[in-house]
Amino acid sequence: MTKNKIGKQTLVFNNKPKIISACSIVGVKEGQGPMNTWFDRILEDDTFGEKTWEKSESKMLKEAIVTALNKSGKEKTQIDSILSGDLLNQLMSSAFMARDLQIPFIGLYGACSTMAESLLMGSVFIDGGYGSNIIAGASSHYCTAERQFRLPLEHGNQRPPSAQWTATAAGAFVLSDEKNYGEEPMLIERPMGHELNPKSVINVKKDICVTHGTLGKIIDTGLKDANQMGAAMAPAFVDTVLNHLEDTKRNITDYDLILSGDLGNIGKQIAIDLLKDAGLNQKDLIDRYDDCGSMMYEQEQDVHAGGSGCGCSASIFTGYVYKRMKKGEIKRALLVSTGALLSTISPFQGESIPGIAHGICVEIC
Amino acid sequence: MTKNKIGKQTLVFNNKPKIISACSIVGVKEGQGPMNTWFDRILEDDTFGEKTWEKSESKMLKEAIVTALNKSGKEKTQIDSILSGDLLNQLMSSAFMARDLQIPFIGLYGACSTMAESLLMGSVFIDGGYGSNIIAGASSHYCTAERQFRLPLEHGNQRPPSAQWTATAAGAFVLSDEKNYGEEPMLIERPMGHELNPKSVINVKKDICVTHGTLGKIIDTGLKDANQMGAAMAPAFVDTVLNHLEDTKRNITDYDLILSGDLGNIGKQIAIDLLKDAGLNQKDLIDRYDDCGSMMYEQEQDVHAGGSGCGCSASIFTGYVYKRMKKGEIKRALLVSTGALLSTISPFQGESIPGIAHGICVEIC
Repeated sequence: MTKNKIGKQTLVFNNKPKIISACSIVGVKEGQGPMNTWFDRILEDDTFGEKTWEKSESKMLKEAIVTALNKSGKEKTQIDSILSGDLLNQLMSSAFMARDLQIPFIGLYGACSTMAESLLMGSVFIDGGYGSNIIAGASSHYCTAERQFRLPLEHGNQRPPSAQWTATAAGAFVLSDEKNYGEEPMLIERPMGHELNPKSVINVKKDICVTHGTLGKIIDTGLKDANQMGAAMAPAFVDTVLNHLEDTKRNITDYDLILSGDLGNIGKQIAIDLLKDAGLNQKDLIDRYDDCGSMMYEQEQDVHAGGSGCGCSASIFTGYVYKRMKKGEIKRALLVSTGALLSTISPFQGESIPGIAHGICVEIC
Repeated sequence: MTKNKIGKQTLVFNNKPKIISACSIVGVKEGQGPMNTWFDRILEDDTFGEKTWEKSESKMLKEAIVTALNKSGKEKTQIDSILSGDLLNQLMSSAFMARDLQIPFIGLYGACSTMAESLLMGSVFIDGGYGSNIIAGASSHYCTAERQFRLPLEHGNQRPPSAQWTATAAGAFVLSDEKNYGEEPMLIERPMGHELNPKSVINVKKDICVTHGTLGKIIDTGLKDANQMGAAMAPAFVDTVLNHLEDTKRNITDYDLILSGDLGNIGKQIAIDLLKDAGLNQKDLIDRYDDCGSMMYEQEQDVHAGGSGCGCSASIFTGYVYKRMKKGEIKRALLVSTGALLSTISPFQGESIPGIAHGICVEIC
């Protein structure tokens, strides 16, 4: 057993990489949802002034990264590398974002699990002394995802009740090997009618660090319906949570919050059932477990089974979770982004949907 | 400056992660090329018995990984994680490979730079104590790449003289924190007519380790012609090499071999010109620099500007370089895989081609 690994799948970050800043940006629909007071910026227009959806998404990711960088008080030249990914073929959002920033770039693909994957890999870099300041990010956009994975928006196709809505959202964290002693300028830009909820203003400043990362393995239960993503990913989430608890010898009651990335309303219920079957106390679970996809939209917003996409957990981790931790309201959280590693053509070749989930433990330190 | 980083872009692996085994598998055309005696396995049929090209590629990658694992003498349960990527949308080859193996999986996307990216990230894991045994791999397939990035093969389109041929090839390394004291079974399967060249048989057993990794940043010179990939990537290769030399305070004469991943014949010449312009001695350079894409095929094989694809550098690093190092014929090599981070749609949106190159220093230790 190596010094920074415990159990089968969990890495331990003994040097406790600090999360010194974060930024969340979401689209119009996400800005109308129940989480809207937690985001740093809500777009007035999902095109973000660009001529193609892909460029809109790339600009949104870049804005999240640059804003997180500005909030961190670091200079661009102090950033050792950017670890980032998205859902687009060949990581188009991330590649064009990184081109503009001229910082060494590591492209990651974990489908919607990418935010936890980038945070995990970034923590390895900081904890191991391979960098002092690392940016971890991820994004997704409803319009790029629909076009790429389903049908162009112009087609106006109907969505089944089990379908999820890819969040138009991006998030970025700055990880550092030293605490951020400066004041964090909030830099919140919000359109008219979305005034900031005083609850989301950070007045108590806690230091937040990443203590563990649990690498996910692929779980594929043979499900082939690409409109049942939550069901396809739930077993991978459950596998990662159970491995995390076993490796760390902890109980779920050791956490104030356990989040899955984008199981949605159906997948969340399956995850609860599976975790209950695995012996976890249902009340303890329901008290602290939620899903970013379920949190993102109101029932009335007509997104059917909830939100999805890399940006879903990216924006909720960097918005809601980060700010509540910064305020001291959450002391320890297990953040598990979930991904469905199907490709644009694998379903047409008769393949089922491989699920994956990477977990990160963050706590006030 | 952190303990394991020197200069601007280079990581130092003080614990010297060992490469304890490797496997290279190539397709029919690659098996007819000048490198053929160095590969572990040459397919008799590029379908590899599968019904779709994507499944053929995934099976080839899995075979490379399983063979490298078997050669290493490790059990599957001793492998901490697989870091792998390919050119397919949503990393289809890697995802379905990892599904079958049930080992924690980190998906990487660096276009054709993925072999160096996975080797670099794997070395970080081993060096930092985040795992004892890690598999790093990458693959590409001519038929999946043509279909995805250009036109279906059935179309029979003409290729311009500057076009490169995506290699049907896969490679995998097993990295470890301890030396491999066992005998390495060679497990070479070769079809009739491709008898093994005695030169490629490993009789002297040297230990090989990874000492440095230089992270690449994106360089985009504005080139938009997707049939000029070598020209698009050459500046990124040059940037990474110059940064590596500056960070490590070394000269090119400190290396027995410097390889670029897949610049091809045109990109290789551009790289030589740019490195000469940067002040490197041309003779020193020509004595030790080559390109995997140029090495892969004979002029007579009608591939125009040479080979490309993740599998190109993956198979030559794991075949030619690994075996020559194992035999003690190369003592220190700088391996730089090069990637063009365009997407399947970015050229249609008027975008130029972002290039990236990640470098790895391997030496006998």
